Order: sequence, then C-alpha cells, then structure tokens
Amino acid sequence: MTLHRRNFVTGAVAGGAAATAAAAASTFPKPAIAQDRREWRMVTTWPKNFPGLGTGANILGDLITRMSDGRLSVTVYGAGEIVPAFEAMDAVSNGTVEMGHGAPYYWKGKVDASQYIAATPFGMNAQEQNAWFQYGGGQELADRVYEQMGCKFFPSGNTGTQMGGWFNKEMNTIADYQGLKMRIPGLGGEVVKAAGATVVNLPGGELLAAMQSGAIDAMEWVGPYNDLAFGIYQVAQYYYYPGWHEPATVLDNFINLDAWSELPDDLKAIVEVANTAVNQLVLGEFVARNNAALQSLINEHNVDLRPFPDELLTELGRISGEVLGDLTSADPLSSEVMQSIVSFRSEARAWGNVSERAFAGARDLPFDWVTP
Amino acid sequence: MTLHRRNFVTGAVAGGAAATAAAAASTFPKPAIAQDRREWRMVTTWPKNFPGLGTGANILGDLITRMSDGRLSVTVYGAGEIVPAFEAMDAVSNGTVEMGHGAPYYWKGKVDASQYIAATPFGMNAQEQNAWFQYGGGQELADRVYEQMGCKFFPSGNTGTQMGGWFNKEMNTIADYQGLKMRIPGLGGEVVKAAGATVVNLPGGELLAAMQSGAIDAMEWVGPYNDLAFGIYQVAQYYYYPGWHEPATVLDNFINLDAWSELPDDLKAIVEVANTAVNQLVLGEFVARNNAALQSLINEHNVDLRPFPDELLTELGRISGEVLGDLTSADPLSSEVMQSIVSFRSEARAWGNVSERAFAGARDLPFDWVTP
Repeated sequence: MTLHRRNFVTGAVAGGAAATAAAAASTFPKPAIAQDRREWRMVTTWPKNFPGLGTGANILGDLITRMSDGRLSVTVYGAGEIVPAFEAMDAVSNGTVEMGHGAPYYWKGKVDASQYIAATPFGMNAQEQNAWFQYGGGQELADRVYEQMGCKFFPSGNTGTQMGGWFNKEMNTIADYQGLKMRIPGLGGEVVKAAGATVVNLPGGELLAAMQSGAIDAMEWVGPYNDLAFGIYQVAQYYYYPGWHEPATVLDNFINLDAWSELPDDLKAIVEVANTAVNQLVLGEFVARNNAALQSLINEHNVDLRPFPDELLTELGRISGEVLGDLTSADPLSSEVMQSIVSFRSEARAWGNVSERAFAGARDLPFDWVTP
Repeated sequence: MTLHRRNFVTGAVAGGAAATAAAAASTFPKPAIAQDRREWRMVTTWPKNFPGLGTGANILGDLITRMSDGRLSVTVYGAGEIVPAFEAMDAVSNGTVEMGHGAPYYWKGKVDASQYIAATPFGMNAQEQNAWFQYGGGQELADRVYEQMGCKFFPSGNTGTQMGGWFNKEMNTIADYQGLKMRIPGLGGEVVKAAGATVVNLPGGELLAAMQSGAIDAMEWVGPYNDLAFGIYQVAQYYYYPGWHEPATVLDNFINLDAWSELPDDLKAIVEVANTAVNQLVLGEFVARNNAALQSLINEHNVDLRPFPDELLTELGRISGEVLGDLTSADPLSSEVMQSIVSFRSEARAWGNVSERAFAGARDLPFDWVTP
C-alpha cells in the first residue's frame, strides 16, 4: 500500500477531511510548556483510527503520555484535522506541530532517499528491517535523511509482508504485465511499469468502481486485514501473493528537531522506547488480524487465492534490481542507503534461509501436530 | 538452548559464581523508596553480560532507569552475584529482590505450564509468538502462570529460530536417533528421547570435551552467534538446521507481585513498554549477529552446514505433537496454554505461508538483485 496525496485525502476513506483542515488549524492551541509539562500534537497521514496504521499512532501517543505521567502529553490528529495527510511533514518541519506519523515513502518528493527506508521490492522482511535499523546502521542513515527535513526519525510500526494485490486477469508470465492497468504506487509501480504495465493513480474512493468497470485490471492495497475491510473481494477475481513490492513496510514517527533537542533525556528515552515498542505492537496486530481476515476471505467470500508463478517472480526480481539500481544511482544519499540495504540483506537472506524459512518449511510437512 | 540448573551454574561459563552467592546476598542493600525514588535489583539466570541474553537484561535495566530518570533505578546482577542462576525465581517470589530475567522453561519445576510459554517444538516463530502474547491471549495466560509464582510476567527478548545442533553422526532418517547420545534439554529432549535417543545432561564446561571423546554424539546450544563464541565447531562435524525444537525462544522478565502492585501507573507503563522494546531489540541483535557468525562458521571454520531431511523432520513433527499432547493432558493450565497455542499457530501458519514464507522463496529465486 502506498497512498498518494491527492488520491487519498479526497478519497472515501478520508472524505471531507481536507475541507475542514484550514479551519481546524486555526482553532488548535499552540504547544505549551508549563510547570515542566509539555503538550505536543501529532499529525498523521492516516484517517483517524485507521485500522493498524492510525491505531498504531494512537498507541504511540498513549504510551508516551502514560510513561511520562503527562509531562509529555501527546494528542493524535487524523489526516485533515490540522493539516491534510501529506502536509504532515511540512507541519512538523516548520514547527506548526511537534511530531507526525506516516510512512517514509510519502516524503520522497522532499528527500529521495526516504522511499528506500520504507520498503524495497524483494528487499527485507520486518524482522530484518528492524535488525537493520538497530544493528545494521539503518537508524543513522535514516536520521541523516530526516535531518534534511528538519526532523528526528524513528521506525514506528511495520505492516509485515503485504499481499501482491487483486487482479481480474490471470498472471502467469511476465508478459501478462504488458498493457495491464494497475493501481500500484511507489517503487512497486516503477517495477511493473518497467515490465510493461500502465500504472494508474485513482482516488481511494474510486478504486472499487474502476475495478468493476474494467477501467483498471488490478490494484494492490495492504493485506487481508485492510483489504477485507475495504471490500475489494467484491470486485476482483484473483488475490495474488506474496507482496514482493512491499515485503515489510516501515511506518515513521518524525519529530521537529528543535522540539526534540529541547526534551530532557528521560523524555527522549521515553519517546524512543515507545517507538520501539509500537514498532512491534503494530506488526503483532497485523500478524494476528491478517490470519483471521485471510480465513474470512477464503471461507466466507470464496476468494481465489493464488501464488505468483516462480517464472514471473524471477523476472520481477531481476527488473526490481535494475529499477532500484537506476533510481538510486543518480543520488548519493539514496545510493548509500541502497548499498547498506544490499549488504545487510545479503547476510540476512543467508541466515533467514536456514532459520525462519527452513523452520516454516519443516512446520508445513505432512504430520499431525498436537490434536485437540 | 535450555540451560539446566546444576549444569549451568557449575559450568565454565558461570564457573565459581554460585560459590560467592551466599556472601554476596548478605552484602547488598535492601530495596529503598526515598523521595519517590526506588532502587530495584534484577537477578538473572545469565552470566554477567552473556551475549544476547545477559546484554538483553542489561538493556532492560538501562531503559527503565533512563525513562524514569532514576525514579525507578534497576541494577542488574549476573547469575551467582546475589543468588545462583536458577534460584532467581525464588529470590523474586519471596521478595529478596524485585525482578528477574531468564526464560520461562526454567520454572517448569514450579509451574509446569511455564515451559510451553517459552517455546514449543514445531510451534511458532518470533513474530507469531509476539502476536500471540499481544493479540492472541498469550499475555493473560502467562500472567496466570506467573501469578502462581507470585510474579507479574513480561516477554523480554527472543532468540529467534535457533539451530538444530551439532552432530558427529549424519542424520538421515528418524532411525538415526536410536542410541544417539545428545545434550538437548527441555521439550526438545523429550521428543528425541521418544525418538530413541539417550538425552545426556552435562555441565556447560564439560560439553566440548564430551563431544571430542565421543561420550556424547551431539549437542544443541543456541545459534551461530553463541555457538561460534563457545567454539563448538572445533569438536563437531555437522551443523544441522533448522532448530525445530526451539523455533523462537521467549525470555522472561518476572516481577514480585507486591513490588509491581506498589508501582504508580507511569512506572508500570515504563516497565511494560521497556519490555516490549527489549523483546524486539534482543531479537534484532540475534538476527544481525547470527548473519555474520554463520558466514564466519562456514567460510573461516569450514563448518559442514546441513538441513535435516524432510523425512526425518516429518517424523519429529509427528512425535512432537504426541509428546506435547501427552505432557499437557495431565495438567489443566498446561492444557489450556497448549490449546491456545495450537489455535493461534494454525491461523498464523496459513498466513505465514502466503506472506513471510512465500516472500522468502520469491527472494531466493535465481535473479541478480541490485548490483553494487
């Protein structure tokens, strides 16, 4: 899932939100420090309480407020409540509010390298992404990227591996991308475009009608939990996996650098540790909810679940490598981020194959485990 | 890796620690509350600064102290500094100290159900374990288990998928377990015993010599990071994967219930959130360090890395199901924990197959990704 500025804010999921933004911005109080108590505002790119993503931002605000006993009180605003979704970074950069919550690829128009921090086609899974941030130099690189936007960066949630998307055409070989009209933003969109597809951007609220009319042949959103809620199964024939284009999408918490610098050490620690915890809690929620939603899609809505064939994935992998290499070669910081990911992913893949992946295979062999 | 009380404390890694315990216990001050400042002691089952496990406990103490600005100051003690490793739970239960850090299966002699919270053969990976705690009822069940020991429970780190172990015999079929002498404690040991092996318990400091002399044929420890440091490659021919017996081992933080209840809400939140963060940080460290250690074992120490054959794993999976069913059927709480795991694992496996596992397969197809 990548949400685009114009599409998202005017779409059904956030309908009307932008309209009230200007009015709301003027009515909210300025941040206050009184008796060593700070009141911060967190703007988000998510519709208020949006499942998994918006609720992750809510948890972050709640944990910081509770851990600090209100000495740093964070109020969370949905997209459009103070500023439209994709003006969240501007609002934090210029100090209108202190912090924001979204996803790194939303800021690629400001600093190109941000999009590679979010997710890379055929890149790393969530566990590896986290290890890269914490022990592979990722945090330092991301901080350099966000400093260019006047912000401190924290990874603040992860969707885990997304789905490949919904298709009204069978996808058998790479040739099936020729002429395919697909809603798939971001780096995934660049890859399928290179494979011959036409990438279509439409507001969220028009996507289902476009699928039904045949104006588009395919669309990707998130995973079973969000896709079920969106009702995409009503207008699509096939549900393909895996989400090679977003194997683990990082959410971001970005904090105005002046506001960050001014915090005492204990509140800095509270903000940092709350983000580390939210990072895991959001992923845990997706893991738990996707399970149940997938069962509902298959058993109640008779969704035709299909794997992308290996031949097609091999070609997408090759094209992804070319596209990522081309896109990052022009910009030194993007190139540096990409090289760090390439290096970490190489070792992580080797270890992942003998640990998590081998275990997943072993667990799936034909035996009865514990019978109730 | 499961460490056993007598073996571990008297072994080389913690040599001499137990001897000084009684003396040390009497010299440490009692916990203090002064001017709303609390000084807590955390005893651990790990040798001081033990890589990944002991350092995880250190991080936990540091985060709590920093976030509370010293209002809750936690000092961490290695095994034997106040009490021997496996008396950590007694020390916390009876209020000698306020908190401890170890692994749930160490307490199976006190409450049988604790061992199923740590890891189950062919059970869940780390991501699923966390989701089960947070969104699958696992936290509530674990709290009921630990309440019987007078403690509050938090998951506090995870090793991720361990290795299958080191062998001086090729393992081709389940028949190769007949007569095998192996160091493998805990539930994994129960399974290989049912498969015909002789499970041998030896102090950590005697393991390498026993492998070299042929007194034992095989041993498991943790994964590449810890196994490399232990030097096991010097005395073993084959390094088998995956660690079917410990697909993701949970570490625990246990807190005396009176001490826990007395904490104000902000400090409770700090302790809880610090644990959620440590849970991810420990896993991230294992992911990052195992990568590099595996490369070192293969390339510098010429370790013969081998997968367990599918036929053998299928039989181990079947036997694991029987053993877990038999062991838990006698105890209502163990049975309840096991049924919750069976149910969550069933859905998690279905989702894991189309997400993480399918992605790992896609990523491993024969294409060049981004070339440096």
